Amino acid sequence: MIERIAIFGTGLLGASAGLALRAAGFRGTIVGWNRGPEQGQTALQMGAIDSLASDPLQLARESQVIVLCTPVFAILDWMGQLSGILGPDQLVTDVGSTKAQITAAADQQFNRPDKAAFLPGHPMAGKERGGAALADAELYRGAVWLFTDNSSWKRSTESASLIKDWRACVEKIGARVIDLDAGRHDELVAWVSHLPQFVATALSATLQDQVGDAPELKDVGGRALREMTRLGSSPYSMWRDIAHTNTEAIQAALAALEQRLAHIRENLRTPELRDEFETANRFRKQ
Amino acid sequence: MIERIAIFGTGLLGASAGLALRAAGFRGTIVGWNRGPEQGQTALQMGAIDSLASDPLQLARESQVIVLCTPVFAILDWMGQLSGILGPDQLVTDVGSTKAQITAAADQQFNRPDKAAFLPGHPMAGKERGGAALADAELYRGAVWLFTDNSSWKRSTESASLIKDWRACVEKIGARVIDLDAGRHDELVAWVSHLPQFVATALSATLQDQVGDAPELKDVGGRALREMTRLGSSPYSMWRDIAHTNTEAIQAALAALEQRLAHIRENLRTPELRDEFETANRFRKQ
Repeated sequence: MIERIAIFGTGLLGASAGLALRAAGFRGTIVGWNRGPEQGQTALQMGAIDSLASDPLQLARESQVIVLCTPVFAILDWMGQLSGILGPDQLVTDVGSTKAQITAAADQQFNRPDKAAFLPGHPMAGKERGGAALADAELYRGAVWLFTDNSSWKRSTESASLIKDWRACVEKIGARVIDLDAGRHDELVAWVSHLPQFVATALSATLQDQVGDAPELKDVGGRALREMTRLGSSPYSMWRDIAHTNTEAIQAALAALEQRLAHIRENLRTPELRDEFETANRFRKQ
Repeated sequence: MIERIAIFGTGLLGASAGLALRAAGFRGTIVGWNRGPEQGQTALQMGAIDSLASDPLQLARESQVIVLCTPVFAILDWMGQLSGILGPDQLVTDVGSTKAQITAAADQQFNRPDKAAFLPGHPMAGKERGGAALADAELYRGAVWLFTDNSSWKRSTESASLIKDWRACVEKIGARVIDLDAGRHDELVAWVSHLPQFVATALSATLQDQVGDAPELKDVGGRALREMTRLGSSPYSMWRDIAHTNTEAIQAALAALEQRLAHIRENLRTPELRDEFETANRFRKQ
């Protein structure tokens, strides 16, 4: 049974995980660490963590499960730092948005007989703004939590048990566990998550430049505008890492959308426009 | 006081207007006409109209206010048919999504001493699917209802009174009345309404072609995907008319977005990406 969990990064996802574990009846200890002190204090005050560690490496050594809840580059950085100091009776897992690089690093730096286990994870949950203050014990309820463990490594009994327990924790906080190949994960999320984000960013930035100063803007904009630009609030700090670690798939998705927009632009007055609407309608009927 | 209203087109907007007028205490008669009998019957059964007319021209002659609640081309067509048979004690108004052509036709065919008055209108309300069955007495609550009356015609007392009464009706059903120049209207909605729609259509159609068959799609897609493709359900029948009557402004908006997406695609790994996110963040902070 897991009795001591460390949460590295007590922002929206990390603090929500702490709150959700507690709400689901987890009775062990949850200790947080955060690079900046403010998010850590907020998480502590709201009860997402029991205490805030000052030495992350010592915290990691003393924990059974270390959950990395930072942007992707920081996850990769922590993996490098933790690989050498943890033992085979420990589990590291993460909530990073891209999985190919993290899963490859897991196979190289963890998941070996003398190393800790690493279970790459990605909950399909979040908000357009981050931060511990927005944390929510219900954030993961009904969400899918993907795991992309490609390793064929024969686990120790302790590792296998921790992995099983962590997957059970994830289900107890209301998420649905799905296993997926890491490469397929990154390809799919390029289309269904990253493309919508960059489209919302592009749309919001375009509107800012074109009509951001228009006094009539707040009168004329309706629900469609709010919805299509909500993700325009997303922070660069998180998306920089995604853009860097899934570049080719995102480029392909953006290029496909640009072509489609050009086709629509050239066919606003031809029957081709009907085909575009009908194809779009079919996607929504699924 | 308005005692007899005709609603031409008893789909989502028309039937919702009928329901809303009734809920707001309108005591006169509301008669509907619809090209296809099904929507008319649905509107009748739900109490959005008191009766369904079989002869639209006769209905128009007998009404004080005729509200055209059809797509834009049908509105323009009805304007041509009604101009010659209505008198100066009658008011025609509409809910069409583009306003320059309708407002120009209003100045030519109405708003003259021997003609009926025409008040071009556009409620910023709707749903991604149309039809009387989705009608809602609350559809217009909190929405902005734009009027684009550019005419300098000196109204008759009766015309002025009907216009005043109709604007009061619109406020009574919960909408906020704003007056705007028709050309400025079409320019603005190209950015804040038409561009988001065509982006959602392009995104939905792209995803249908690329991942529409993927078995993992329903697991991996989250709130962002649902939100960014909701408008993908919108019907071609309505948007064809918008694309035809605001073509140049929509083309300019689409071209600007294409450029932005290409810029993002070329800068996924450069600091330029930060500028795009920051500009997008600024739009959302307004």
